Amino acid sequence: MSKFLSKRLQNLEPYTPGEQPQDQQYIKLNTNENPYPPSPWAAEAINAAAVNQLRLYSDPTCEKLLQAIATRYELQPEQVMPGNGSDENLFFALRAFCDEDTPLAYADVTYGCYKVWAGLLHIPSHVIPLEKDFSLDPKKYYSLGGETIVIANPNAPTGMALPAAEIEKIVQANAGGVVIVDEAYVDFGGESCVPLIKKYPNLLVVQTFSKSRSLAGARLGFAMGSAELIADLNRVKFSLNPYNINRLTLLAGETAMRDEDYFRRTCGIVAATRETTAQELAKRGFAVLPSKANFVFARTDKMAGGALYAALKEKGILVRHFDAPRIADWLRISIGKPEDMHKLMEALDAILENASRANAAQPTD
Amino acid sequence: MSKFLSKRLQNLEPYTPGEQPQDQQYIKLNTNENPYPPSPWAAEAINAAAVNQLRLYSDPTCEKLLQAIATRYELQPEQVMPGNGSDENLFFALRAFCDEDTPLAYADVTYGCYKVWAGLLHIPSHVIPLEKDFSLDPKKYYSLGGETIVIANPNAPTGMALPAAEIEKIVQANAGGVVIVDEAYVDFGGESCVPLIKKYPNLLVVQTFSKSRSLAGARLGFAMGSAELIADLNRVKFSLNPYNINRLTLLAGETAMRDEDYFRRTCGIVAATRETTAQELAKRGFAVLPSKANFVFARTDKMAGGALYAALKEKGILVRHFDAPRIADWLRISIGKPEDMHKLMEALDAILENASRANAAQPTD
Repeated sequence: MSKFLSKRLQNLEPYTPGEQPQDQQYIKLNTNENPYPPSPWAAEAINAAAVNQLRLYSDPTCEKLLQAIATRYELQPEQVMPGNGSDENLFFALRAFCDEDTPLAYADVTYGCYKVWAGLLHIPSHVIPLEKDFSLDPKKYYSLGGETIVIANPNAPTGMALPAAEIEKIVQANAGGVVIVDEAYVDFGGESCVPLIKKYPNLLVVQTFSKSRSLAGARLGFAMGSAELIADLNRVKFSLNPYNINRLTLLAGETAMRDEDYFRRTCGIVAATRETTAQELAKRGFAVLPSKANFVFARTDKMAGGALYAALKEKGILVRHFDAPRIADWLRISIGKPEDMHKLMEALDAILENASRANAAQPTD
Repeated sequence: MSKFLSKRLQNLEPYTPGEQPQDQQYIKLNTNENPYPPSPWAAEAINAAAVNQLRLYSDPTCEKLLQAIATRYELQPEQVMPGNGSDENLFFALRAFCDEDTPLAYADVTYGCYKVWAGLLHIPSHVIPLEKDFSLDPKKYYSLGGETIVIANPNAPTGMALPAAEIEKIVQANAGGVVIVDEAYVDFGGESCVPLIKKYPNLLVVQTFSKSRSLAGARLGFAMGSAELIADLNRVKFSLNPYNINRLTLLAGETAMRDEDYFRRTCGIVAATRETTAQELAKRGFAVLPSKANFVFARTDKMAGGALYAALKEKGILVRHFDAPRIADWLRISIGKPEDMHKLMEALDAILENASRANAAQPTD
């Protein structure tokens, strides 16, 4: 920290992204990436000619991409705003709709960036604990008096989802504030709130190309809502970074959004692999939360979360462990290809057998 | 504007990017893009295999790119931080080094985003007017008492540059504050302050791949300074958008940075074309400021700036006109290929001849 850093930032705790060790090849089940490549249309669109056009600024209005998203979600282009990853969309929304007088309400166990952004932007946080079983009780969000609310649905890292009708009640009950629904993982089995946008001017839905469209490395997210909310987000964007999305990502996003068949096919395979994975974990005695996302959240009585994470890493498999209250014994396991999950099960069997043998070998007197 | 927009943003005036009309093909001399494509190494690096890897998050530490930049500028990787365009680097720097108590000092005629960011971040602005001839008097920056200073060198839209020794005196005189030197245009003939970084812990130099490395559409900038200043910027980055740069841009940037020959060759051609352009404009009676950038700033007594801009657009040539105090009669003309500049001169000749004929035809009594 330099002596020049603003006092306001000196206590800020940045977000820690999932590790990306370079020491060996790992089976990466730790950052919720899609195991399948993006639509082949994206690679076609990004060719040498496209690269040569990089000398020119990208379209700050992102017109063609907006058109593709609007068509897919039955919205108008002015109801959509793309971002440099949905993280940027969410940051813009917090900048627009929160301030010292308008706190941000969110769950205690959810995406870690909400808390970090509130810190960076000096927004008061209103943390609403999840229930004991990690479910979210919508009633606790019914009378927040104009606070801005953000709900990840499905939630991370639990994977648990609310039906759209339950979110709708929250949106209705908070007409004086903006309700942001972070649907990063919705395409793997959740129910989207996008159809509610035409009914509620205070609803903002944020999605991403990172997961269901296999473009985590392209950095592309999008917010959807009333034209007025989107105009507010654009006011922030054009005051911060008008050219926030590069040309190649615009091409990748537009083509991937149009390739509906490929999208449905890959999401379907991931969802099916998730179900098999959950069953296999349950067979081995794991508690597994009911996930609608491209990951599962699981724990076993046989081994602490941190120790199991370390043992898997030793065997070349990365999963995500959060050393945080309530979830320190759980692991978030991204869904890979079936063969990756098979190797995971083999590794778990070996690790847990080893652990129980070690336990049995302890002197009992 | 929605009723939900934070009161703090309601008077914010966003930046207006240069126009990108789609109605016809224009000769684009309005956004300071490079007329030559990026290094062919970039197109080679971005191939189908790279696109297929987009399913994976980009490296948040940007390690390989940092290594390439550090090697080129004789710095350590921890003295460099890449951004999603240098706009993002500058925004991070203002977030880190300014606040309600630490104003931002900058010239009245300079890059328009400084003022916009100060508005977005609620930072007081200390505007220091340029001299009558648009030169910057360094003495006016000698005792700013810990304010953060940003100087575009060469300046935009004037193109005028200070020698590094003059900037050094400002950095020395303001040891209690950070001095940011925005060197977006330095590679076309300016003198960089990068060699001063090892002497001054309060100096931050920001450059971009957009201009001299022909990658405006890839969105890539970088800040260079002491490891402490860079750590502060990373604290902001990891609190806002840890994956701020996408995989393909990382590849394009790394390869373009290593292709020194191509860089020198294209910068040399642009600088030579600038000199010819300035001479041709002077021949036609234009006042042309002495530019070290990839654009010239020029005016003529024969026609108002706005009218000349419109007449050129009618002829299919876009230049930039700022309807702002002190510079409303000037045009900023980006340097294109020699044939583009030739067409510009033909258009100017036709427009000015037409104008003087129309003037002559006015009844004089």
